[in-house]
Amino acid sequence: MALIVQKYGGTSVGSVERIKDVAQRVAKFKMLGHQVVVVVSAMSGETNRLIALAREIQQSPDPRELDVLVSTGEQVTIALLSMALKDLGLRAKSYTGAQVRILTDDAFTKARILGIDEERIRADLEAGRVVVVAGFQGVDERGNITTLGRGGSDTTGVALAAALHADECQIYTDVDGVYTTDPRIVPEARRLKTVTFEEMLEMASLGSKVLQIRSVEFAGKYKVKLRVLSSFEEGGEGTLITFEEDDKMEQAVISGIAFNRDEAKITVQGVPDRPGIAYQILGPIAEGNVDVDMIIQNVGADGTTDFTFTVHRNEYQRALDILARVEAQIGARKVSGDTRICKVSVVGVGMRSHVGIASSMFRTLADEGINIQMISTSEIKISVVLDEKYLELAVRILHKAFKLEEEPQAV
Amino acid sequence: MALIVQKYGGTSVGSVERIKDVAQRVAKFKMLGHQVVVVVSAMSGETNRLIALAREIQQSPDPRELDVLVSTGEQVTIALLSMALKDLGLRAKSYTGAQVRILTDDAFTKARILGIDEERIRADLEAGRVVVVAGFQGVDERGNITTLGRGGSDTTGVALAAALHADECQIYTDVDGVYTTDPRIVPEARRLKTVTFEEMLEMASLGSKVLQIRSVEFAGKYKVKLRVLSSFEEGGEGTLITFEEDDKMEQAVISGIAFNRDEAKITVQGVPDRPGIAYQILGPIAEGNVDVDMIIQNVGADGTTDFTFTVHRNEYQRALDILARVEAQIGARKVSGDTRICKVSVVGVGMRSHVGIASSMFRTLADEGINIQMISTSEIKISVVLDEKYLELAVRILHKAFKLEEEPQAV
Repeated sequence: MALIVQKYGGTSVGSVERIKDVAQRVAKFKMLGHQVVVVVSAMSGETNRLIALAREIQQSPDPRELDVLVSTGEQVTIALLSMALKDLGLRAKSYTGAQVRILTDDAFTKARILGIDEERIRADLEAGRVVVVAGFQGVDERGNITTLGRGGSDTTGVALAAALHADECQIYTDVDGVYTTDPRIVPEARRLKTVTFEEMLEMASLGSKVLQIRSVEFAGKYKVKLRVLSSFEEGGEGTLITFEEDDKMEQAVISGIAFNRDEAKITVQGVPDRPGIAYQILGPIAEGNVDVDMIIQNVGADGTTDFTFTVHRNEYQRALDILARVEAQIGARKVSGDTRICKVSVVGVGMRSHVGIASSMFRTLADEGINIQMISTSEIKISVVLDEKYLELAVRILHKAFKLEEEPQAV
Repeated sequence: MALIVQKYGGTSVGSVERIKDVAQRVAKFKMLGHQVVVVVSAMSGETNRLIALAREIQQSPDPRELDVLVSTGEQVTIALLSMALKDLGLRAKSYTGAQVRILTDDAFTKARILGIDEERIRADLEAGRVVVVAGFQGVDERGNITTLGRGGSDTTGVALAAALHADECQIYTDVDGVYTTDPRIVPEARRLKTVTFEEMLEMASLGSKVLQIRSVEFAGKYKVKLRVLSSFEEGGEGTLITFEEDDKMEQAVISGIAFNRDEAKITVQGVPDRPGIAYQILGPIAEGNVDVDMIIQNVGADGTTDFTFTVHRNEYQRALDILARVEAQIGARKVSGDTRICKVSVVGVGMRSHVGIASSMFRTLADEGINIQMISTSEIKISVVLDEKYLELAVRILHKAFKLEEEPQAV
C-alpha cells in the first residue's frame, strides 16, 4: 500500500465527463489498496472567465479580491469530483486550500506556501477516504484567501506530497511524459523514462511546459518523487523525475532538445567598456518590470563593447522604450533589436563529464549553414540563439546528431 | 451616522452593470457618513447553473459537497462588488461566510445560524471600510462550508444586523415595498409604509414572497429594524417592518389581502368521529414528507366526520397515494380532492380589536355569489378557500371593501 498524490490540471477536469473519468482512475488506485489524495485545478477556461469578469469591473483588479474570485474555480472542481467519487461508492471529502490549511504568505495572486497542516487529511486517509484538495490556493495567517499564481496547482500537489511523505506525486497532463523534444517537430522524439530535476528545470524554463518550474524546485528541495503522466491514456508509465544521485544507470549524455520562440534580442552597441555598464543598462530594464533571459557581453576592443540580452517578445517594445530614455546617459553608439529569433538548447546532466558536446552542437549547425547569433552555457545546457526560420531544422538535426531517438545505454 | 446592513438579491447583482449600480448606491450611503455592511446573493442564475452541474454528476448530490459547490456563487459576487467599490475609490473588503465566521449547525443545504463573530467586521467598519459579506453561507464548528438554503441571504443580512446592532437592515429586491395586495390584480394596490412583523409573517407564508419568512422571524426575535426597498429605483422609502408596539399610530385594521393558488384540498369523508383520527390521517402524510397547510375538521353528526386539509399542488398526488394505502385502516367512506382551488386571506393586526371583520369579508364574497369552501382563522388573519376561478375577483372586491387603496387614518 502506498500513499499517492495525484494532480489533475484544467483540461483533465474540463467537463463533467472528464471529471467522471478522473473519478474512475482514482477508484482504480483505491481498489489496489493505495491511499489517494487528489489535487485539482479549475475546469479549463473557468479561471480565464473569472478574470475577464473582474476586468469588466476594474481595469487592474484588486489582488486580494481577485484571489477571492478565482479561487472559486477549484472549489467547484473539488465538489464535483467528490460527488463523482461518491457516485462510484467511494468515501470522499473535499478541502479548499483554507480548509486544509495551506498556509501562505500574503502576496496575493503569487503567494508562497509557508506550511501545511496535514493532520486532518491524514485522519481522513486513515479512515479510508479519498481526499480531494483544491490546487492553486491557500490562506494567509489572517484568514485571507490567497492563490499561488498560474500553474500553482502543481506546487500544491508537490507540497502536499512533501507534507504527507507521499510515496509518489503523479502529475496528470495532456501529454504522456517528458520527451526528448517536441514530437510535432521531430516525430522520432522519444519519451524519457526518467529525467533529473536539474534537466527538468532547464527544460521547463526553456519551453517544455509540462510542469510548472516552481513545483519542480519544490519537489527537488523536499525530495518528492514526481511522475508526469497522461490523463487521457491508460496504463502509461510517464516520466519519472529523479535526483541525479538516485539514478546512475542508463544516464544519457544528452536528455533533450528544448526550444523557445517567444524571445527577442536587443543589442546595445558601442558602450564604454567600464565597470558598472551592465547595471546601467539592465537596472532601468528591471525597474520597468521586464524580465531578461540571456545576457551576453563580449570583451571590448577599442574601449567600447557590445551588450546583448533577450526579453520576452511581448516586452520587447517596452524594453526599447526604456533604453531610448537612458541611451544618451549610457553613452551607447546604437541600440538595435530583432524579434525574429529563436533559442535552441541541448540539455543533459551527462554533459558535465563529456567534453565535446558544445563542439558537436556547433558543428552540426554549421554543417547545415545555420549561423549562431548568441551562445550561452550552463553546467548542464548549451543554448544558442538563431534566426527563427531555422528553429525546426536545428531541433531536428540536433536530435539526430545526439541519437536521441534511441534508448540510452548505461554509461 | 448610522450602521446600515444592505442586502442585495441575485437580480440586483445579476450582471457586471448591476453590480456597478449597487456599488454606486453603497457609495452614496458611505458619502452620507454611514457605516455600511453589504450582504449579497449569487448572480441570478448562477446557483441553478451549479446545481445543474452537480446533478449531471450525481442524481441526488452529496449535501456537504453541494454546499462547497453552490457557496462559490456568492463568493464570486463579493469579490466583484468589492472591486467595483474600490474602483469608485472606496475602501472595501470581502468576507465569505467562513471568514466572518458565521457559525452554523452542520445541517448541510439548510443550516441554521448559531452565532456570528462580528469583531473583525466591526474593526473594518471603524477603519472606514465597506464590508461585503457572502449571504446564504456559513461554516460549522469543524470548518465545513454550509448553506442556509434558498433565500438564506435575507437571513444572513438580518443576522448580521442583529450581531452588529445595526440601525437598519435594508433588503433590496425587485419590488419597492410590501403592497396591500398584488398590483397586477388590483391596480389600486397601495405600498404600505409600515407593516408589522406578524402581518409580514402571515403575508409571506400566504404568498407575498418579498422576504424569506425565516429572516422575518429572525428580525422579530432580535428586534432588527427591517426595510424592504427596490434596487432599481432611487430614493424610495420602501416598507418598514415594525414591531406592533413601536408603531401605534396610523394602524390600519386590515393591512393587506394575500392569496395563493399553489394549493390543493383533500377531503377524507365519513371517518369515525373518535379520538386519534386526525393523527391516523395526518401521521402517514407527514411521514411521507408532505407539508400540510390548512386543516379543518367539523363536528360530527352520525358518529362520523369529514376531515379536510390542503397541500401544495406538487404534492397532491403523493398525498392521495398515501391515503389510498391507509384508507381502509382509517375506516373512511371516501377520499376526494380538488386542485382547482385558491386561498384568499385578509391580514391585519388591527382585526384583533375590531369585531365584524370576518362578517364583512363573508358578506362581500356572498354579495358577488362566491361560495366559500373552507374557512380558517388566526389572531390576525382570516383565510378562505374558494374555487380558483374567483381568485382575482375576490381579491379585488375585498381590497375595495376594506378601503385598502386609501391611506389609513389613526385609530
